[in-house]
Parts: sequence; structure tokens; C-alpha cells
Amino acid sequence: MFAKETYIARRAKLKKSVGSGLLLFLGNDESGMNYADNTYHFRQDSTFLYFFGLPYAGLAALIDIDNDKEIIFGDELTIDDIVWMGIQPTLKEKSEAAGIYEVRPFKEIATYLQQAQQKKQTIHYLPTYRAEHQVKLLQWLGIMPGTEKPSVPFIFGVVNQRNYKSAEEIAEIDKACIVTADMHLAAMHTVRPGIRECEVAAAVQEAAARHNYELSFPIIATVNGQTLHNHDHSHLIKPGDMLLLDAGAETEMGYAGDMSSTIPADAKFTQRQRDVYDIQVAAHEAAVAALRPGVPFVDVYELSCKVIMEGMKDLGFAKGDPMEAVKAGAHAMFMPCGLGHMMGLDVHDMENLGEVYVGYNGKPKSTQFGRKSLRLGRELEPGFVLTIEPGIYFIPELIDLWRSENKFTEFLNYDKLETYKDFSGIRNEEDYLITETGARLLGKKVPVHAEDVEAEKLKG
Amino acid sequence: MFAKETYIARRAKLKKSVGSGLLLFLGNDESGMNYADNTYHFRQDSTFLYFFGLPYAGLAALIDIDNDKEIIFGDELTIDDIVWMGIQPTLKEKSEAAGIYEVRPFKEIATYLQQAQQKKQTIHYLPTYRAEHQVKLLQWLGIMPGTEKPSVPFIFGVVNQRNYKSAEEIAEIDKACIVTADMHLAAMHTVRPGIRECEVAAAVQEAAARHNYELSFPIIATVNGQTLHNHDHSHLIKPGDMLLLDAGAETEMGYAGDMSSTIPADAKFTQRQRDVYDIQVAAHEAAVAALRPGVPFVDVYELSCKVIMEGMKDLGFAKGDPMEAVKAGAHAMFMPCGLGHMMGLDVHDMENLGEVYVGYNGKPKSTQFGRKSLRLGRELEPGFVLTIEPGIYFIPELIDLWRSENKFTEFLNYDKLETYKDFSGIRNEEDYLITETGARLLGKKVPVHAEDVEAEKLKG
Repeated sequence: MFAKETYIARRAKLKKSVGSGLLLFLGNDESGMNYADNTYHFRQDSTFLYFFGLPYAGLAALIDIDNDKEIIFGDELTIDDIVWMGIQPTLKEKSEAAGIYEVRPFKEIATYLQQAQQKKQTIHYLPTYRAEHQVKLLQWLGIMPGTEKPSVPFIFGVVNQRNYKSAEEIAEIDKACIVTADMHLAAMHTVRPGIRECEVAAAVQEAAARHNYELSFPIIATVNGQTLHNHDHSHLIKPGDMLLLDAGAETEMGYAGDMSSTIPADAKFTQRQRDVYDIQVAAHEAAVAALRPGVPFVDVYELSCKVIMEGMKDLGFAKGDPMEAVKAGAHAMFMPCGLGHMMGLDVHDMENLGEVYVGYNGKPKSTQFGRKSLRLGRELEPGFVLTIEPGIYFIPELIDLWRSENKFTEFLNYDKLETYKDFSGIRNEEDYLITETGARLLGKKVPVHAEDVEAEKLKG
Repeated sequence: MFAKETYIARRAKLKKSVGSGLLLFLGNDESGMNYADNTYHFRQDSTFLYFFGLPYAGLAALIDIDNDKEIIFGDELTIDDIVWMGIQPTLKEKSEAAGIYEVRPFKEIATYLQQAQQKKQTIHYLPTYRAEHQVKLLQWLGIMPGTEKPSVPFIFGVVNQRNYKSAEEIAEIDKACIVTADMHLAAMHTVRPGIRECEVAAAVQEAAARHNYELSFPIIATVNGQTLHNHDHSHLIKPGDMLLLDAGAETEMGYAGDMSSTIPADAKFTQRQRDVYDIQVAAHEAAVAALRPGVPFVDVYELSCKVIMEGMKDLGFAKGDPMEAVKAGAHAMFMPCGLGHMMGLDVHDMENLGEVYVGYNGKPKSTQFGRKSLRLGRELEPGFVLTIEPGIYFIPELIDLWRSENKFTEFLNYDKLETYKDFSGIRNEEDYLITETGARLLGKKVPVHAEDVEAEKLKG
């Protein structure tokens, strides 16, 4: 936890931002895998962590702005708990470390909320993302699952603080990114023909776990990099393959790192791979060079996509004007996902609160295929932490679909694309802090240039 | 998956066992950690896996005994899904592999159930253990969370099949136990003074993950073995410490292994540790030697506890008649948990269905402290798979509590106990199959005797 003053200041700012009513914070519970007591690792809700700092299951909190009260609801350990779980600080002591001096038994929250309802206080709550949240809103406030009405002022209040990272948060994210970098170096030292993807994933996870860090998201470690949502680790790595790794660590305080690498199975990339790889690196570096306050991130996205289309034109996959192709959406053949996203206590920061609020400041997002997957579009400001992750993918199903629809025939050469259906995909990803004058790499450098990746492999 | 005939036969037997009505199987959904799309690794419900074999999120199934129908409810992938997730067999094809030939869209299950309600069919469902199950029962059947009434005939029908492992299941459990053994060997090769518990836990997890196996439960890797529920891995291992490891692997089909080891930080146990360690081994081996069909497991528990009390008497911690002490419950000072539990698709097999059904065949459990934590008491039968895991713990809070209550002063020497409050705890655990004539160790042998553990450490 940070010092209590941090949490006190954050809550004070939030109260001022929302102005009136009662703010309800649903802490997370333990989640059973195949029965209640066989639990996944506990993960506290990030907004609860941000304002209260307590990484424990079974808590909820209220900020009653109208009556100037801050209350944690939760239960103290029984003697039986202590026998099984060992001696611990009391919940009262833990709460005081977050500057909260009122702790009540968990069951009392229902009464408090129902009295607030009777007094016609506005009860603000955030979007739910676990069924347990829905059950609580039902039991406490009579809200049927699926009919929740999250509070937009509460969402904006949270987003307008969490989007700007403080120095102590940046120090945590740097820690996450240093371990994340080590995870990628571990993969570069491990990847070789004849082993399975899971052996790489195991080494990557080990590199985080040895620091007592969790994964910030499920590892992607795949020879099928063109399949974007792919958590299968069962394939054998064959000569001539590339392994796409997307993985990050989460510090004990909950801050995330998120990087991607593309690693040849053999000592070196093939020339065919290298030609495409170098275009990805150019698109990556063009994006990084463009990062500074005042630049709309959607412009950085378009710039990076334009570099990809220029390269794909040189290789004969694309034709026509590259920027026109990007404006039309033809680049989504190669890059159907976004360029990057906010990162902090969540790897996609505050994704549960809504990308439109977090990444677009409440303005509408594009609905164009590809561009609609860009999670961040707003003007950059100092304190933003974000990822840069352009990619070039050859997706057989997308090639077939668009070809059958005669889509973008003025920009795409389908005959050439047909010959790359077995290519897979390439992505490199780094994390940056927007500074007053530009941007700073978070963590430490992982090899990105092809020669540097090949050299790093030799150290394995 | 097993062959479709396995699932067809299991369902036929279940239908015959319950006799009439409609059996509702709630498959599990993806579980979000800190937002909906950042998910824990998916774990299908074990009973769903047992009868339908499909390890995919977003499914439910009905066996309508009255109308002789078996239906899977779930949705086929859209073209968008395929672009992001790659080409896959259809749900229809997947279901046919489990011998199910009727697949309907997920949303139709509500209508089917409501029509069954109108026709006064009995709708059988199992105990819920995830909030998502509660939300579904609410939305489909109007059952408020907390007011569920699970079907006892359904529970018995499931338990009476899943408790008896088939040859193909035993082969899977053997695979889980071989990898579980490797996890423990990895720990023996890693533990040393100066590293943190998390470095051992990382090596243990790596040994499972390299086979694409999940953990069957969260790793316990602690220098505070006396704290039974302890998932903290942050401590430094110091000279003179012991590390208690409780960890197991889960195969890709979902079958579990579960073993424990106690490993000295240094090259050898101290004499003080060794004296207690050897008693644990004797209690362990006495239990194993007693395993055979027809023996009530509660008798094996008492036998093992008696060996502990004999040893503790020799060391001066206990007095009086050892078996009398066990009958009275005084042994729970050292062993407040059970001797073992059923194991299969769940590490505590079918814990969500109720230990009384699984481990006691519906008969009541003891309420005595210690003995009440014994999850298995029934007469052993061929095909049962269970763990053997006696332990000896010195729990400071329990010593203080019982001393303050003058509890069992005829059996316990509190003055001597006071001097061992810093000892921590010892457990070794193996997994056994009950055969026609006795019991067989599952997986492969991990060193248990102190000299063998010390010798294994040298290989690290």
C-alpha cells in the first residue's frame, strides 16, 4: 500500500468531483474454480484498490458524500480463522492504514443502503463485471441482474484520476515492466524447434512468479500469431516457425506491465519473415517517435498504420495511396486491432468502466472494422501510461471473407495475400509514459530489432 | 475427451438412478479478474465434464428423463469470433463427440425450463458454487440467490458414479500424479536458505505448466507450515527452516494430483525436526498399510492419529493412553485437519456436492474439533481414489487457546508445547487407489523418508 495520505487525497478529490450522493465500492470476493473453496488467486477490484488500497476479499466501502462519512464494511477474523490462517492485523488496523476510521460488520451495508434509498439519496455505483457484483446489487438494492444503471459522474470521477499516473504509481509500473521485460528475455532464451509452446509459457510465468508477481493477463505464447485471442499452448514449435509472445507481470500492489515479442524458432528469421518483421518495427518506431502531449492518439494510430501500408505496398500486398487505404479501413486486413491502450492497475486500464470514457473522454468511437478496436483515441496528456503494439497479421479467414465480398480491391492484392496464409503474425509491444515533452519507455529495453532478437537468443 | 460411449453410458446410468424429471447441468462461464475480458484460466464444472466432456465456456445441458431428451445449449461461433479466435469445430461437432445430437441456442434454455415448470416436471439441479450459477437460476427459474434447493437424488446419482474411478480415469489420475511428483522433486532441488518461498512456488508451477497442466489447487509453499491455509509466498527461507509444499497438477482433461512434502532449508533436518518428522512418516505409513476395501476410513484416521500421539508421548508433548486421547479429540492439537479426501476431477472430489454425501454416504459427520475436518469417513471400496496426509503442526494460537481453557490437560503437556511454538509443521501426502485387495500408489514415488529427502536435495 501507499501511505494513507495518498488514499485520503484520492477520495477527497473524488468526492469533490461527484459532488453529492453516496458512492458504493464493491470489493471483490474469492472466486471458486470447481468448488467454492478451490479458488483462483484473489484479485481485488482495481478501483477499490485505488481508493482504499486493501487487497483483501469480502469487503465493500461507502463514501457518503452527503453525510461526510467513509466506511469499510467487512468482518474481523474469528479465533477459528486465526488457527487456520495465522495471526493478522485486524480489519480496523488495516483500514486505518488507508485513512478509514469507521469499520462495520459486512451485513450492515444492506441496511445502510436501504436507509439511503428511503432518504432519496443518489446511490452511485460502477459497471459490474462479476456475477457476484450483480448478486450484491440485487440483495442490497433490489436491482435485477442485467438492469444495472451505473453512474456516469462516478465513472468520470474515477477515470479523471486514474488516467493520470502519479510518481509513486509510475515507480510501481516501472517495477512491473522490468519483470515483464525479464519474462520476454526468458522466452527469447527458451524458444527453439522441438519444444511445445507451453514450455515457453511456463518459463515466462516462472520469471514473474519468482518475484511473487502474478500475470497481469493470461499469457499468449503461440506459433499462430495471426489468431489474436489465442491462449492455446499445446503446439509443437517447428523449424521456420515464429513464436508470438504477449505477456506481462502484475506487482504485488496490482500494477501491470504488458509487452509483446516475436521470436524466430531458429537462430535467425527467414528472409520472408524478416521482410514483414522490419515493417512492423518501422511502424512501431514511427508511433513511439510521435508520442507527446497534445497529439490525438488516433493520429498516432493512423501514422503507424500508414507505415504498415507503405511497407505492404513495397512487398506487393497493397496498392494505392497508403493513407487513403488507412482512412478507408483497408489496413485492417493486416492490423484489425488497435495500436495501444491505457495501462495501470488494469492491463487495459479501467476497461470495465468503458473505453469511451477512458480512451475517448466520452466522445463516440469509430464503428469501422479494425478502427473500432482502438481502445484509445484521445489527445495525449502528461501522466498517461499506454502501450504501443502495432501488428501485422495474415488471417486466412479474413482474407477469404474480404475476398468473397470483393472488399477493398483497390487497396489489396488478394493473389499475393493467398500466398501468405501460412505466415502467421508479428507484434512487438512496449509501454510508455507520456511526459511533459514526449514519452519515456517504462521498465527496460527488450530487443525489438531483428538482429537484436537473434543476438539475445544466443544467450539462452 | 474420452470416447463418446463413456459419456453415453454415464448419462444412461444417471438417468436410471434419478428416475424421472429433468436434470439441469450448469456449465461454467469465463471468470473476469479485474474486468470481464481479463479472465482467469477457464475451468469447466467437473460434473459437466464428467457427463458431457466439453471443456468450453458458455454451455448448459439438460437431460429430460421424462421425455428422453439430451440437449446441449450454447452458441456457435460467428465469423467475427473466427477471425479473432481461429477456425474451430462447431459446437454441433463437439457435442457429437460426447454422443449428444441436439444442440440449441443458449437463450432457448430459459423457455425449455419454464415450459417444464408449467408441466410440473421436477427440475433437478446441483448446489451452486459460483455467483454466475445463482444468476442463471434466478433468470431461468426465478430462484432468488440463497434460496436454492439442490436435488439430493441428483447429488447421490452423481456421487455414486464419480466416487468409483474407471480404468481410463485412473490412467488420467496417474498422469496428474506423475507430474505432481515432478513438481515436488523440483521443489526439493530448489529449496535453500536465502531464496524466497515464491522462488520455490515458481519452480513448482513451471514443472506443471511445461506439460500444459494447470495447478489442481493454489500452491502452498511456506516456512510457516503450521498455518494450514497459507498462500503467502513472500518469506525468505532461512537456515534451520523447513518448507512445507502442498501442490498438485491437473491434466488437460481436468483430473487432479495432490501431494505434500516437507523439505529442510539446509542439507539435512535438524535433530529436533527429525524427531517429529519421523513420527509423521510412521503415521503416514501406518495409514497406507491399513488401506483396503471394507475398512472404514475413520478407523484409518484414528490409527494414524494414534501413531502420532504415541510419538508425541515419547517426545514428552503428550501423556495418557494414545487411543483414548484420539477418541477424546486431544490429538487435534497436533493434527486439526483430516487424514485424506477423495480425489478425481476435483482435488477435493465433489466438495461442492457436500462431503456428507461424498465421504460419508449421507451419514452425519462428527462435530468434534479436528475430527469434523475429516472429509472422508466411509468404508473404503475398490475404485476409490484418495489422499493420505497426516500432519504434525505446532500452532501457537491453538496452544494458547486450549491452555487458557485448560483443555485436555490429562493428555497434553503444555509446558513442553510452549517450547515448540516456533517449530512450524510437517506434512507428507500421497495419493492412493483402493484396489480389490489393498491400495496402489498413484503416479510415482517421491522421497518421504528423511534420508531420502536429503539425498534428493543433493540432485538440485
